[in-house]
Amino acid sequence: MRRIKLVIAYDGTNYHGWQLQPGEITVEEVINRALSELLKEDIAVIGASRTDAGVHALGNVAVFDTETKIPAEKICFALNRYLPWDIRVQSSMEVPGDFHPRKVKCRKTYEYRILNRDILIPTERLYAYFVYYDLNIEKMKKAAEYLAGTHDFKSFCSAKTHVEDTVRTIYGIEIEKKGHIIAIRVTGNGFLYNMVRIIAGTLIEVGRGAIAPEDMIKILDGRNRRLAGPTAPAHGLTLVRIEYE
Amino acid sequence: MRRIKLVIAYDGTNYHGWQLQPGEITVEEVINRALSELLKEDIAVIGASRTDAGVHALGNVAVFDTETKIPAEKICFALNRYLPWDIRVQSSMEVPGDFHPRKVKCRKTYEYRILNRDILIPTERLYAYFVYYDLNIEKMKKAAEYLAGTHDFKSFCSAKTHVEDTVRTIYGIEIEKKGHIIAIRVTGNGFLYNMVRIIAGTLIEVGRGAIAPEDMIKILDGRNRRLAGPTAPAHGLTLVRIEYE
Repeated sequence: MRRIKLVIAYDGTNYHGWQLQPGEITVEEVINRALSELLKEDIAVIGASRTDAGVHALGNVAVFDTETKIPAEKICFALNRYLPWDIRVQSSMEVPGDFHPRKVKCRKTYEYRILNRDILIPTERLYAYFVYYDLNIEKMKKAAEYLAGTHDFKSFCSAKTHVEDTVRTIYGIEIEKKGHIIAIRVTGNGFLYNMVRIIAGTLIEVGRGAIAPEDMIKILDGRNRRLAGPTAPAHGLTLVRIEYE
Repeated sequence: MRRIKLVIAYDGTNYHGWQLQPGEITVEEVINRALSELLKEDIAVIGASRTDAGVHALGNVAVFDTETKIPAEKICFALNRYLPWDIRVQSSMEVPGDFHPRKVKCRKTYEYRILNRDILIPTERLYAYFVYYDLNIEKMKKAAEYLAGTHDFKSFCSAKTHVEDTVRTIYGIEIEKKGHIIAIRVTGNGFLYNMVRIIAGTLIEVGRGAIAPEDMIKILDGRNRRLAGPTAPAHGLTLVRIEYE
């Protein structure tokens, strides 16, 4: 028995997120089905990140155990033949049998993309959130600086979930404008439910002048979801990569 | 009666090209229907470029005549409310009543995008042609130089069409690699049927070593479609802009 780690990219547009869900098509389900078909074993992967419906990925991670004789590095190429075009496994490799993608420490990088211009560009609509009012990127950068480091991010966590520990570390948060696209790239040791989308929604409020950059201190200190901005839509978000120690 | 010029962007994925076609949904049809609904007149636009099924546009052009009192510059905003999200009118302005978008001299710019890496990235699949073998971009640039200028492009015209005059001028052709995307950007005074897609298909052959850059001279001189490379797929192509004199 070997444990195999997959790095998986997908276009989240047509999926009800990562996690198995009765009555809905999810990425996890499609991967399980393709692996079981390829390997003639009953495979159930363990995923690293349960991305929401509509969220994209360049590098989500999943592991599974198999008896197959196919060399670990070749599994991705074989597997892609059983997958639809909107899911592509980028690499496959053997990992220790006790490697659990949600329990080993890691750095996750997400990117939130905003299309900021007066009229939507149709070919960007599926992968960027369209905001037609002018965003002040300098203010957004200033506000983002307050989020870097170790903080209690309770204000940036969906009120729907109840986790004990809402302290997380953001190693870096970069905001860059290329053409009409503003990209917010956040790297951290883990993220609370909807955290990146709430950060993006709050930075958009800063960009349009509704929240001052310095208000981020009060928002963090308040530990109250209502103090932060709205949750930005799922389709602007991409899970870029997960790096394990 | 005023003549209005529209600049139109669309995602070609879900359309059977620009031109009206019985039994198929086309961009022209959807624009005609939206304009007629908005203005309560029976509108039929004249388009500048009849893009193929699957080809995208950032700036196709169309004109129509109307009695409306809506200020010309505001029409685009009103019209977008009647259009699906994969078609967005970028601007609207009044033009002289005899302005015909296919008869006035212009410069057209197209971009052909290639995703060049070993495994497809799903979020790029609709707007770039996936090529998994390594392309030599320096060779492609060298080959492209032979195409710039005024030439008989008969070898780069679909054999399905019969036009008298196959001489066209390419003002510039630039090839640039950004990350995994190779973009071929061509500006010319007009293009033959499938010309940009055949240029892209031929440059891909050059990039993978099947055609030498210097062979472009023979291909042009031969005036025979069979000498050039295959027609690259429609979804990699975007009509970027049309500039009128």
